Amino acid sequence: MFYHAKELQFNARVSAPDPRFARILLEQFGGQNGELKAAMQYFTQAFTLKQPFPDKYDLLMDIATEEFSHLEIVGATIQMLLKGVNGELKIASEQDEINTLLDGKTSKEGYIHEAMVNPHFYAVSGGGPALTDSNGIPWTAAYVNANGDPTVDLRSNMAAESRAKLTYEYLLKYTDDPYVRETLRFLMTREVAHYQMFEAALATIQPNFPPGVLQTDPKYSNTYFNMSGGPTVRGPWNEGVSTQLGEEWQYIENPQQVVVETEGLTKVEPTGTERTESSVKKADKALGKLRSEEIKSALPKGATQWSEY
Amino acid sequence: MFYHAKELQFNARVSAPDPRFARILLEQFGGQNGELKAAMQYFTQAFTLKQPFPDKYDLLMDIATEEFSHLEIVGATIQMLLKGVNGELKIASEQDEINTLLDGKTSKEGYIHEAMVNPHFYAVSGGGPALTDSNGIPWTAAYVNANGDPTVDLRSNMAAESRAKLTYEYLLKYTDDPYVRETLRFLMTREVAHYQMFEAALATIQPNFPPGVLQTDPKYSNTYFNMSGGPTVRGPWNEGVSTQLGEEWQYIENPQQVVVETEGLTKVEPTGTERTESSVKKADKALGKLRSEEIKSALPKGATQWSEY
Amino acid sequence: MFYHAKELQFNARVSAPDPRFARILLEQFGGQNGELKAAMQYFTQAFTLKQPFPDKYDLLMDIATEEFSHLEIVGATIQMLLKGVNGELKIASEQDEINTLLDGKTSKEGYIHEAMVNPHFYAVSGGGPALTDSNGIPWTAAYVNANGDPTVDLRSNMAAESRAKLTYEYLLKYTDDPYVRETLRFLMTREVAHYQMFEAALATIQPNFPPGVLQTDPKYSNTYFNMSGGPTVRGPWNEGVSTQLGEEWQYIENPQQVVVETEGLTKVEPTGTERTESSVKKADKALGKLRSEEIKSALPKGATQWSEY
Amino acid sequence: MFYHAKELQFNARVSAPDPRFARILLEQFGGQNGELKAAMQYFTQAFTLKQPFPDKYDLLMDIATEEFSHLEIVGATIQMLLKGVNGELKIASEQDEINTLLDGKTSKEGYIHEAMVNPHFYAVSGGGPALTDSNGIPWTAAYVNANGDPTVDLRSNMAAESRAKLTYEYLLKYTDDPYVRETLRFLMTREVAHYQMFEAALATIQPNFPPGVLQTDPKYSNTYFNMSGGPTVRGPWNEGVSTQLGEEWQYIENPQQVVVETEGLTKVEPTGTERTESSVKKADKALGKLRSEEIKSALPKGATQWSEY
Amino acid sequence: MFYHAKELQFNARVSAPDPRFARILLEQFGGQNGELKAAMQYFTQAFTLKQPFPDKYDLLMDIATEEFSHLEIVGATIQMLLKGVNGELKIASEQDEINTLLDGKTSKEGYIHEAMVNPHFYAVSGGGPALTDSNGIPWTAAYVNANGDPTVDLRSNMAAESRAKLTYEYLLKYTDDPYVRETLRFLMTREVAHYQMFEAALATIQPNFPPGVLQTDPKYSNTYFNMSGGPTVRGPWNEGVSTQLGEEWQYIENPQQVVVETEGLTKVEPTGTERTESSVKKADKALGKLRSEEIKSALPKGATQWSEY
Amino acid sequence: MFYHAKELQFNARVSAPDPRFARILLEQFGGQNGELKAAMQYFTQAFTLKQPFPDKYDLLMDIATEEFSHLEIVGATIQMLLKGVNGELKIASEQDEINTLLDGKTSKEGYIHEAMVNPHFYAVSGGGPALTDSNGIPWTAAYVNANGDPTVDLRSNMAAESRAKLTYEYLLKYTDDPYVRETLRFLMTREVAHYQMFEAALATIQPNFPPGVLQTDPKYSNTYFNMSGGPTVRGPWNEGVSTQLGEEWQYIENPQQVVVETEGLTKVEPTGTERTESSVKKADKALGKLRSEEIKSALPKGATQWSEY
Repeated sequence: MFYHAKELQFNARVSAPDPRFARILLEQFGGQNGELKAAMQYFTQAFTLKQPFPDKYDLLMDIATEEFSHLEIVGATIQMLLKGVNGELKIASEQDEINTLLDGKTSKEGYIHEAMVNPHFYAVSGGGPALTDSNGIPWTAAYVNANGDPTVDLRSNMAAESRAKLTYEYLLKYTDDPYVRETLRFLMTREVAHYQMFEAALATIQPNFPPGVLQTDPKYSNTYFNMSGGPTVRGPWNEGVSTQLGEEWQYIENPQQVVVETEGLTKVEPTGTERTESSVKKADKALGKLRSEEIKSALPKGATQWSEY
Repeated sequence: MFYHAKELQFNARVSAPDPRFARILLEQFGGQNGELKAAMQYFTQAFTLKQPFPDKYDLLMDIATEEFSHLEIVGATIQMLLKGVNGELKIASEQDEINTLLDGKTSKEGYIHEAMVNPHFYAVSGGGPALTDSNGIPWTAAYVNANGDPTVDLRSNMAAESRAKLTYEYLLKYTDDPYVRETLRFLMTREVAHYQMFEAALATIQPNFPPGVLQTDPKYSNTYFNMSGGPTVRGPWNEGVSTQLGEEWQYIENPQQVVVETEGLTKVEPTGTERTESSVKKADKALGKLRSEEIKSALPKGATQWSEY
Repeated sequence: MFYHAKELQFNARVSAPDPRFARILLEQFGGQNGELKAAMQYFTQAFTLKQPFPDKYDLLMDIATEEFSHLEIVGATIQMLLKGVNGELKIASEQDEINTLLDGKTSKEGYIHEAMVNPHFYAVSGGGPALTDSNGIPWTAAYVNANGDPTVDLRSNMAAESRAKLTYEYLLKYTDDPYVRETLRFLMTREVAHYQMFEAALATIQPNFPPGVLQTDPKYSNTYFNMSGGPTVRGPWNEGVSTQLGEEWQYIENPQQVVVETEGLTKVEPTGTERTESSVKKADKALGKLRSEEIKSALPKGATQWSEY
Repeated sequence: MFYHAKELQFNARVSAPDPRFARILLEQFGGQNGELKAAMQYFTQAFTLKQPFPDKYDLLMDIATEEFSHLEIVGATIQMLLKGVNGELKIASEQDEINTLLDGKTSKEGYIHEAMVNPHFYAVSGGGPALTDSNGIPWTAAYVNANGDPTVDLRSNMAAESRAKLTYEYLLKYTDDPYVRETLRFLMTREVAHYQMFEAALATIQPNFPPGVLQTDPKYSNTYFNMSGGPTVRGPWNEGVSTQLGEEWQYIENPQQVVVETEGLTKVEPTGTERTESSVKKADKALGKLRSEEIKSALPKGATQWSEY
Repeated sequence: MFYHAKELQFNARVSAPDPRFARILLEQFGGQNGELKAAMQYFTQAFTLKQPFPDKYDLLMDIATEEFSHLEIVGATIQMLLKGVNGELKIASEQDEINTLLDGKTSKEGYIHEAMVNPHFYAVSGGGPALTDSNGIPWTAAYVNANGDPTVDLRSNMAAESRAKLTYEYLLKYTDDPYVRETLRFLMTREVAHYQMFEAALATIQPNFPPGVLQTDPKYSNTYFNMSGGPTVRGPWNEGVSTQLGEEWQYIENPQQVVVETEGLTKVEPTGTERTESSVKKADKALGKLRSEEIKSALPKGATQWSEY
Repeated sequence: MFYHAKELQFNARVSAPDPRFARILLEQFGGQNGELKAAMQYFTQAFTLKQPFPDKYDLLMDIATEEFSHLEIVGATIQMLLKGVNGELKIASEQDEINTLLDGKTSKEGYIHEAMVNPHFYAVSGGGPALTDSNGIPWTAAYVNANGDPTVDLRSNMAAESRAKLTYEYLLKYTDDPYVRETLRFLMTREVAHYQMFEAALATIQPNFPPGVLQTDPKYSNTYFNMSGGPTVRGPWNEGVSTQLGEEWQYIENPQQVVVETEGLTKVEPTGTERTESSVKKADKALGKLRSEEIKSALPKGATQWSEY
């Protein structure tokens, strides 16, 4: 159950209207990496993870709720950046009665020029925020990643926080308003804080790699295919050992030739790894059993009730 | 600022898993007339209406927050209807290790058959709710109507509540689970309660018709064009007087002929109305002035701050 | 069956090209509240409502057809506002052969600057209207509401007309062209006329509240949850009686506490209403029977034929 | 201006309800290659092509209007295929009052099973057509191609008609209902008729190849790049002369090598063609002048009016 | 299997940054008629057409791969047109440290003004291409046409190439950069080359009209309905014989009257054609048999393997 | 520049047709976490990262090209799983000529039942893959994350690979076909290999945390807001030190109270961290300078050329 307090989590202020920055700031209201995306992603993930991870559920709901509160901060800032537009739109009676505009300009031409910045503000939302990105694309749940496994979902969240942080970093280039910058910096900082919370939560689940349950096929797990020609580039991603499984990278200089020679890789044998088909099967079985029983033992038999009162 | 309590607003329970109903119920989670749409619509409208209507702002935030809480109820119910799926998906190690399924079935064939109901539950969300409608269409902000005028927004909301109510009514046909029906009835009832709240709020704004500020052109405001032939149908929508403006309907039996005769309606004169071009201009000017001053007087000069602390 | 006459319903004219206003006007061509949305909404609703409401069917088809005719007017106006662009695009042979442009400017720079207004006009549609909104978002049927019940559909339509009216009101701010303003005023007026037609049609269906068939649960139908804190706001939406059912509003000052105390509202009893569980069941049964029989008796047995010839 | 007659263009009939076929038939109502797409494509193209091609404008509006009429036929057929659903949904009062269903089945289980075919019919549209394809994807204007040049638009239309024809052909596999098959065959036939109309219209514009105005670069116009290895395949698309320009195909066996040798093709010289850089320039200039003057001479100076009355 | 070489197929170069043209050029990166659409359309079609048309499969994969290579050229050009933006975004530390901008401007105002051209470049993609069109609409597979029949797919491709060619033609109006123009001309030329390849391939399949397998109904195949009034326009599309079937056009001056008289066209008899119901049935049967056997004989019995090694 | 070899990277085979699994497998063809998403994400990122990270560019193009090759494997598998459908669709002539179906069933009813699995296969794609997910949603570039910074993009990629891996894990539950399982396991394994490549590449960039350039505000970087009530949950995400910055978590038990007391957090002072406003400014300046010069020094002055030949 949600509650709302009239006070914003952060004291958002605006020195002067700025429809141009309002447009760019939409990225964080209804954009791909914005606050609504974050809020809905964690909120949606939380349902499945509640059992058997009630502690992670609490974490996700804490952050989801904070993101809703950030969405509100962003919306309020956009509204303040558009101050005057809504009032101006009410004087619709006579074509010559254009009042002094947002920034002191008085000409109708100036007004229309501003409308071009984002017609939606002037012809649809009536001078308020819209659930779109900076190009006017309506927010879509296609942005949300929720896949029912904490070793995956928490990684999705770390990436999502990274993108949100970078977006705030980019946004800071486009405003000099000290109040607005203060707000953006607060919001940017919180993304980095959340990143570390998700990382800490991931570490409490062991094993957490590979993500999910199944182990990988040792025949193909440490092969690097050189699919893009030109000067050969070697680095820790295709020489030495892999970061998590510690297998030796096998560099395939000429993939097409190898594919033909191995009948579409079906004749390949594991190399540079200690894992075997049989060790993998065993691990799959053990982890699958563990994970499914964690969940099943946490769920009630018979009828289900969500909350305790 | 939002808060979250672990207790659902309503004590949602489920007697037994039912992936088919879970699919249909998605309509109210991520569908066109679902709870997210309602929550985001009122939340988005609230920013612009806060000034000069702080009382309407409070109303909108009360209901928006309740709708978020309903979204949570719907998501929790879907999660409970899918009980078992997430756990089953963890036993991914061996193809023959299919456990007893949700409803006691044990065959793999039964499991795959169920996956066809909505593959997203089984291959993407991992047995949890997804922000889609019952056909899997991701929620989009294209569903949201927020236009910066309470005489319009409140009407959008009354219509939205009507659709949401009807959807719950339809959904009740597809489940016998008494717990689920209890929850659906609670949610359905709230839509009707909200409808009446919005209606009451609209009535406190006078005048509220026509929606917005501008009056209509008396030449065209009471004309009925018979654009679809066949037997002539007359009713209170094309005879007698109009519901709000009280003008006499002018029935145009043969629109094409009239259009040609009046040079594309430019030669028409007002009939059946007392309003004139001049009375309209006067009203436009007066109401525009009133409405814009309400807003402007409510907004601070200089820097703007959203909340008081 | 549709027919088309070459004459527009209204004598749309344009004084001079204006690509900027053409862009904004797209809202009414391919936008969320535009003419295509209106036309397709009423057209789609009409199929289901034809039986048992042939008179409403006639009304819906009259207005749907008029909206198609308005869509044509808007498209023609956009085309005229873009006069010259299509011809200019044909002189593609030499980069230096830039003709005198739309508004007398001759520099290539001016031309490119204009292209920035909406690149789609210059690089895709070739100087004609596109089925998008003012931000270039393609029209989507997600805008359309058609739910198979006249007490809902007619309310959706009244809200849709309100938004369309407001959009024209906003648009009038962005053009001084007297011809274009004349056209916009005609179109705006028609939305208000349609609103009243739908309202009159709704009144002929009794009862029409709550929308649909089912009555609401008297335990929850008159409760107001104070979900958003801050200064308590009281108004006719949370004190006195509700607008349609005439029940006394029950104001819940502290929802979280009440929810916990009532075990998720399951222990609540009806207050401030004369309706009871039993009266509701009776009403549900009676109205359900009435409504389903209206429809069934209107449908033929056996094979179905749509039209009479 | 559009008109509507109550009689369908074709006498659509249905022998018995069939929700499964109703779902598939949605492809032609709100699908990618359906009737709405066709209608909107020709309607949108018509605005730009009206000048200087009033005869093509007439053709496009004739066919667009016929496609709207076909859309109506498809919608009416879907409605008849869903006969009974809307009526059933009104009996919402009691969970046990399930009436005899569409096809004589009476069990609730059967009803729910049918709802799985397309939940939208049962939970959203209330037993009527929806503007979606057979998977429930809302119609989008992204399907529409209108590019402001008849040599392109008419080709887009021939392709569109081909796809629509094939879709009807596929649909005929899924119904035995002789009435429905009759309707589908009529609609399928009309697509082929329209194809030939567009083809004839294209032939009246000369030259019409390459589409648009600009000639192509003789250095690259007859080269065939063998980008996909394996057995070399030769055919009239890479040997002999090209279909329209009559240039000799130059087959590049090993594109990567040639690209490197020619510094990214910049050192290539025209081969197998009589066209030269200079002949191309001349043609570009002449055709550009012709095409732009056709348009400009057809447009009025000063204010523009769309229709004559 | 795909490979990549570091060398672009064409030596794309850019004289100087130009974010405005970068925006317009997005049409060919992530737009409706751009290179990704082409690549994905041919790639997707190829799967179904591989059997029984391995030669067409080779053609489609050759062109699909070339289109991917063109996508890369377009992306590289956009990247070069945005030179400097990515670097500038890294100096995020201090609001006053604005470096010399792309085009030598140094003011922050100039920078923000440029960001308005397409905020996505400045706030999301970080100065690189995005998979959107020039209005920021994300690329969608709704643009792709792949229908499992070469007589349809090849026609779709000819139309697609026509639109892509025209788009390049339009784009050439917006840049003076000789390097960029050179690249655009190369790309434009290739579309016309591809068009002729598809046309040649279509001609090798006989019969290829009507597209697909089924013949049309002779009762409706040569009728022209005059659905749009005004001055009667006659042309080769409604008089004389049809382009492919050679049937005499039957012009219906007054469709509504004919529809009523023929009971919704059900009483019509074939006129102006030699085809009969019986000749059609025979042709349908023969061609259906031929086409299905072509496919079936090409497919292996039992297990299927895609490639030979 | 891309090339294509006819041999698949992996020897994909199918034992028997299975349209149901074909539908689910669409997730990896045109789904949110599928191969096209991966390919396009890395391909799009590569443009911006090429300078100053040519080694990362090589890595991204290697993997992007492999993902295109995987997309081909998935498409080929879907095509083989649908074996027979395309051939069957060609026998469209007579309603009673239904051939033996995919799985030996011969009844038309069985055929229609199968069409319900995914009508798109039967009525649109003609028995081939479609660029949609398992619910028929067209692929959209809204799935792609490319933000112009390797510390962000590489993290997005690690998360993307995690989701793709999990999806293959889920898919393995729905097929017993040993050939198909072999292919899926290969593809699943490669996602984990790619994950480790991206992780290794990220480690070569130092510092890489926080993602991007700007440091965070020490006042808010280690605060944990307890936004979701109920039993207090403590864990390494809100006690001890943060994972990357090593700051001590400050747990805010009652956020609303603190927000009010600190005037919307503006009166907060840094606690539990050694970072200061001044150390942050210095770090921002230094890193911003470093990062921007890396890029600027790698870009040529004057005209830009993408490839060397």
